[in-house]
Amino acid sequence: MTNSEKALLLHEQWRGKISTNAKCSVKTREDLALAYTPGVAEPCNVIAKDKDAAYQYTIKANTIAVVSDGSAVLGLGNIGPYAAMPVMEGKAVLFKEFGGINAFPICLDTQDTEEIIETVVRIAPGFGGINLEDISAPRCFEIEERLKERLSIPVFHDDQHGTAIVVLAGVINALKVTGKTKEASRVVVNGAGSAGIAIAKLLLNYGFLHIVLCDKTGMLSENTPGLNWMQQKLMAVTNIEKKEGSLSDALKGADIFIGVSAPGIVTKEMVASMNKDSILFAMANPVPEIMPDLAKEAGARVVGTGRSDFPNQVNNVVAFPGIFKGALEAKASQITEEMKLAAAKAIAGLVAEEELNDDNILPQPFDPRVCEAVSNAVIANATTL
Amino acid sequence: MTNSEKALLLHEQWRGKISTNAKCSVKTREDLALAYTPGVAEPCNVIAKDKDAAYQYTIKANTIAVVSDGSAVLGLGNIGPYAAMPVMEGKAVLFKEFGGINAFPICLDTQDTEEIIETVVRIAPGFGGINLEDISAPRCFEIEERLKERLSIPVFHDDQHGTAIVVLAGVINALKVTGKTKEASRVVVNGAGSAGIAIAKLLLNYGFLHIVLCDKTGMLSENTPGLNWMQQKLMAVTNIEKKEGSLSDALKGADIFIGVSAPGIVTKEMVASMNKDSILFAMANPVPEIMPDLAKEAGARVVGTGRSDFPNQVNNVVAFPGIFKGALEAKASQITEEMKLAAAKAIAGLVAEEELNDDNILPQPFDPRVCEAVSNAVIANATTL
Repeated sequence: MTNSEKALLLHEQWRGKISTNAKCSVKTREDLALAYTPGVAEPCNVIAKDKDAAYQYTIKANTIAVVSDGSAVLGLGNIGPYAAMPVMEGKAVLFKEFGGINAFPICLDTQDTEEIIETVVRIAPGFGGINLEDISAPRCFEIEERLKERLSIPVFHDDQHGTAIVVLAGVINALKVTGKTKEASRVVVNGAGSAGIAIAKLLLNYGFLHIVLCDKTGMLSENTPGLNWMQQKLMAVTNIEKKEGSLSDALKGADIFIGVSAPGIVTKEMVASMNKDSILFAMANPVPEIMPDLAKEAGARVVGTGRSDFPNQVNNVVAFPGIFKGALEAKASQITEEMKLAAAKAIAGLVAEEELNDDNILPQPFDPRVCEAVSNAVIANATTL
Repeated sequence: MTNSEKALLLHEQWRGKISTNAKCSVKTREDLALAYTPGVAEPCNVIAKDKDAAYQYTIKANTIAVVSDGSAVLGLGNIGPYAAMPVMEGKAVLFKEFGGINAFPICLDTQDTEEIIETVVRIAPGFGGINLEDISAPRCFEIEERLKERLSIPVFHDDQHGTAIVVLAGVINALKVTGKTKEASRVVVNGAGSAGIAIAKLLLNYGFLHIVLCDKTGMLSENTPGLNWMQQKLMAVTNIEKKEGSLSDALKGADIFIGVSAPGIVTKEMVASMNKDSILFAMANPVPEIMPDLAKEAGARVVGTGRSDFPNQVNNVVAFPGIFKGALEAKASQITEEMKLAAAKAIAGLVAEEELNDDNILPQPFDPRVCEAVSNAVIANATTL
């Protein structure tokens, strides 16, 4: 049986990868009178007077919604809300198992930006946070930004920020290993969708000065036609030399390549044209932009991918559970840039100096210290209500 | 410590009465590859081709939303979505513990009919059914009717139909005990909100011919000013003699009184004016329309209330878990009148002939046979897609 067949069979046996369970007993009349009527009226009355008391008496304290419209699911594309459910359930499982957070999948039967925003605002009262997932760019940027304005609970698009945080953690340690600096390093981010843009933004906020964003057409600059509003916004702070040309041109003399793009599009020649001790995060899945052995042969020093069977796996699961755990515990009203930077540094800090090497720049996804470290960093930098 | 204080303390300890839990393990890379990427792509692809496969591979098979706008919560009134959460969580607990169904509370930050309808339609893909709860009349009628038109999963307003089903079950057995017939019995329903109207409708569908609906102003008829559209609709089939007058007038010569109204508004004199062997369901909570001992002294034969400390408790919990369990198992597209009638008969049928008496016309809420019996009746009468 192939892995795919086995996965399908297991999903049929599970018939849903999460369940909702009672935390209180309702086996007797006395139980019912406390958990339900008439006793339940007490917390209701307290919350009616002060809605923040919902954090004290309800699941809002530790529950988030995993919201998707199914428009950009994994590598599967726009498969819609029904087909997106197995992924959102899986995400909910990861939130629980890695972060101890209750998460419930909400798949939306609309792909209209305004309708998505309105719907999320309306279902928000019972949740302590909103994790947006697999919503296509550029709609995801507007949806997230406007939800952050409308809601006083954290809203976080994991495809953007989860990825960006883990990449930055890897980059921080790769700089240590190679002796490069953020100020002098030239960075090429290939892929200008939600992840690529978020990575570029977080690297800029961390202090990188030279970032060029590329897509299928090559380097993006102010002069590139057809940019979306978010890409245009980034053109003021990336590719400040207004270079034009292909990805191949961009990589000449670059220090860091970050790919969230397509399999095999980076050649050995392109890697060889980069600066010495180059750093590559080739995260196209399952086949990276360039295979690690080829990149190394061409002179790369540090190579990371999205895969668990190569060193330096970039896996969001080291970020999102701790991010939300920290945000919920701090009752943060938003997940700010400071909180994201702190999370990235915390992840990077989990690899001790003496363990740090070209092939060990990120903690393992199953490292039990990760969630707590990220959560604590987030709490220490939280902006609360 | 009073019961209320104890309930508040417990709610603070629980910090949410439900949790979401993983049904699959994600402790190893292999686990992750089956429950999440890349294995999860398989069920996604299958559902993308046939969205009904969501019942086979996702929580849709056995999960409902408990949706409220907090506009008519218990006896507390319009306390809003935050304060409604403890009740909706409690309801979710009951669905799980009595029916084995996953239920998740969704409290809406809007009380606009159109917005509620749109929101529920948009979040529906991941759910196998929608339980509407504590939404005020007459909006609840329109919201339910229009959601039934829009969605192909069951939509059920428990305050209406759950109550109506259990009352009908009690009435069926009360007729047996008293030897009265549905055709000849004169019924007075006091309270013309969601529960009263649903009770009147279900009794009519069961075959009662003489029903008069009352509210604070007395008997409702075609001539009553200020009726809402649903009350007006019912005037074509209730109070067919177009009687006018007070509740007291209505009860003269009546056989059955059903109160979903206010404490203590029925007097011994009013009961004494009813026909011999009268049947009363005095369900105002916690203080009934008339206390059972007074009603009995005045000549009533069968008296039910909403309270667990008197005989013949009318408790929705004998209905809603089994209703949804059956509807989900049958993949019913709606909960029809036939399914509701079948559920009421099944509940009534659980009290064996030899156990049936004035003070034992309904099964106990904790009777373990109830859910299965109701579920089977619903399945046998289900209208599927």
